[in-house]
Amino acid sequence: MLLFRHFASALALTLLLTCPAPTLAADQPLPTPDTVSPELQALIAAPPSPIWNAHPASADEWKKLVGAVADASLKMLPGLREKLGVTLTKGELGGVPVFYLTPAGMPAERCDRLLINLHGGGYVLNPGESGTLEATLMAGLGGYRVVYVDYRMAPDHPYPAAIDDALAVYRELLKTVPAEKIGVFGTSTGGAMTLILPLSARTAGLPMPAALGAGTPWSDLTRTGDTYFTNEGRDNMLVTYDGWLGDAARIYAAGHDMKDPMLSPVYGDLSGFPPTMLTSGTRDLFLSNTVRVHLKLREAGVPADLIVFEGMSHAQYHILPDAPETKLHFTELARFFDRYMQAAGK
Amino acid sequence: MLLFRHFASALALTLLLTCPAPTLAADQPLPTPDTVSPELQALIAAPPSPIWNAHPASADEWKKLVGAVADASLKMLPGLREKLGVTLTKGELGGVPVFYLTPAGMPAERCDRLLINLHGGGYVLNPGESGTLEATLMAGLGGYRVVYVDYRMAPDHPYPAAIDDALAVYRELLKTVPAEKIGVFGTSTGGAMTLILPLSARTAGLPMPAALGAGTPWSDLTRTGDTYFTNEGRDNMLVTYDGWLGDAARIYAAGHDMKDPMLSPVYGDLSGFPPTMLTSGTRDLFLSNTVRVHLKLREAGVPADLIVFEGMSHAQYHILPDAPETKLHFTELARFFDRYMQAAGK
Repeated sequence: MLLFRHFASALALTLLLTCPAPTLAADQPLPTPDTVSPELQALIAAPPSPIWNAHPASADEWKKLVGAVADASLKMLPGLREKLGVTLTKGELGGVPVFYLTPAGMPAERCDRLLINLHGGGYVLNPGESGTLEATLMAGLGGYRVVYVDYRMAPDHPYPAAIDDALAVYRELLKTVPAEKIGVFGTSTGGAMTLILPLSARTAGLPMPAALGAGTPWSDLTRTGDTYFTNEGRDNMLVTYDGWLGDAARIYAAGHDMKDPMLSPVYGDLSGFPPTMLTSGTRDLFLSNTVRVHLKLREAGVPADLIVFEGMSHAQYHILPDAPETKLHFTELARFFDRYMQAAGK
Repeated sequence: MLLFRHFASALALTLLLTCPAPTLAADQPLPTPDTVSPELQALIAAPPSPIWNAHPASADEWKKLVGAVADASLKMLPGLREKLGVTLTKGELGGVPVFYLTPAGMPAERCDRLLINLHGGGYVLNPGESGTLEATLMAGLGGYRVVYVDYRMAPDHPYPAAIDDALAVYRELLKTVPAEKIGVFGTSTGGAMTLILPLSARTAGLPMPAALGAGTPWSDLTRTGDTYFTNEGRDNMLVTYDGWLGDAARIYAAGHDMKDPMLSPVYGDLSGFPPTMLTSGTRDLFLSNTVRVHLKLREAGVPADLIVFEGMSHAQYHILPDAPETKLHFTELARFFDRYMQAAGK
């Protein structure tokens, strides 16, 4: 630090060349970058998510919000499955409802592998089939068989119901599939759960899965991390912690310490973790949630890959099936699972 | 896109829960994140770089600025070398002045490897020994022998003098060191040159180096890329393209097309590139310059690693030798070179 102070003050004394400060772009409307695909440009230029500032005041109002979002998704999903050649079937594992998303074809070496998908939505949104968008894209674009976990959610079922259900599914799967052939992935809340599941598994004495894909994980349920501030109002998906998001954190945590690693996995012991791929965007409110986990994994010596999409707000890599960014994300994620499942000799 | 429009409009019609928009943090002073080391917190909280808004109006004024920055560095460097046990010796390769930075000790397998360092400074700053900070840290913290290239710079020597000198050094080195034992690294302008050198080498019919470390590369000399706008005024090192930075681009390019890959390597053909590690920060004006290259390398199937430091402005991972972020960067970079030089069977 002394070195730097010396450097800065020596310069400040020496230089008399500075001009009046120009107007900075922070005060002006942001241009839509032309450095991304036309599809992503359209998402970046779109108005903020219609729900970002919803503040349901009761369980009934939450259900109205959840229902509206679910209805919109449910209308879209059958067409998407057809387009991508993905089959959806219902099941149950360890007492938890699941959906299987199966691609039309798969490379032979993937046939005995399975990916668990933990969906996003702040522990409140995307119940049942309505949350299967990411699982469908991973089956259709990534070419992997996916088990989607329809875990219980707030407000009816706060912490730890969601992660208990995820663990029950994993425990049940382990009876027929070896851990080194199981991957886990999810986005946002599902990205956080992807990081919490190995912590739960370790506590329960279960083996770790082979690899993880944590997309822009909600790794800190408190408003801690730089981009909660720097990307506020720039991320047009979540917009701010002060919208529905912070409310969801509170009704899910239901009085538990939000810095408990079972709620905010960035505070967990990540040593010995499976190789993990993380994805975010330069405008993502959760960019810090993502890079904090990435750095902590690296410090712990865990192989950890990071992709940050140019100009992208929260989780926009899993909205448009035809966007090149979406294809890149799911292709890279599939390759990542391939690499570490093959490395395990499978 | 149709799917998304349908989704958004269905929601907008259905929801009546939104409240008046809250005040967003974008309009308020940014808090210094406590999610980084105390050393980095001090850098984040520091006032903007004293030179960011310098606009030298003549070659003489440029030299005054360059001299002031160089003097401050030269006072600091001998103490840093002593602290890190690094020896500096002068030399010449292919007619270009160089400095060798040698660590006190090295793992045996690194003894026949060599890293070329291309320093930063907008093609104008950091002449001679004054630019050896990064090379010194890589020798001292990363434990690699480094050849620092004292390439010619603007305004006296605009494009292509700098990259010609870098290529001359590489060509000369190849007479005694096989390409698979040579790595290239640099930050900012040096990060860009690290990406341009393989393009030059290919054109010249020379083999590619084993691996690259491109720290927050100035991969686009034009003001193109999202974080030129979103991180303007937030990055306290560069602050804005409209400071000395844009001036430096113009005097270096000297009328050449700034989108020529030899000036802005993000527009180059990156297929067949050596494995590349990239580093940036969430507040870095060059975060987009970094991730655009990373994504392009990934699309081309090149192994490409990305580290994004929490809360960090441009290139702050190479200022404070004691900061954990600095140690992590140089340790990871050394590990990256190890991995790909070993993979080449060396």
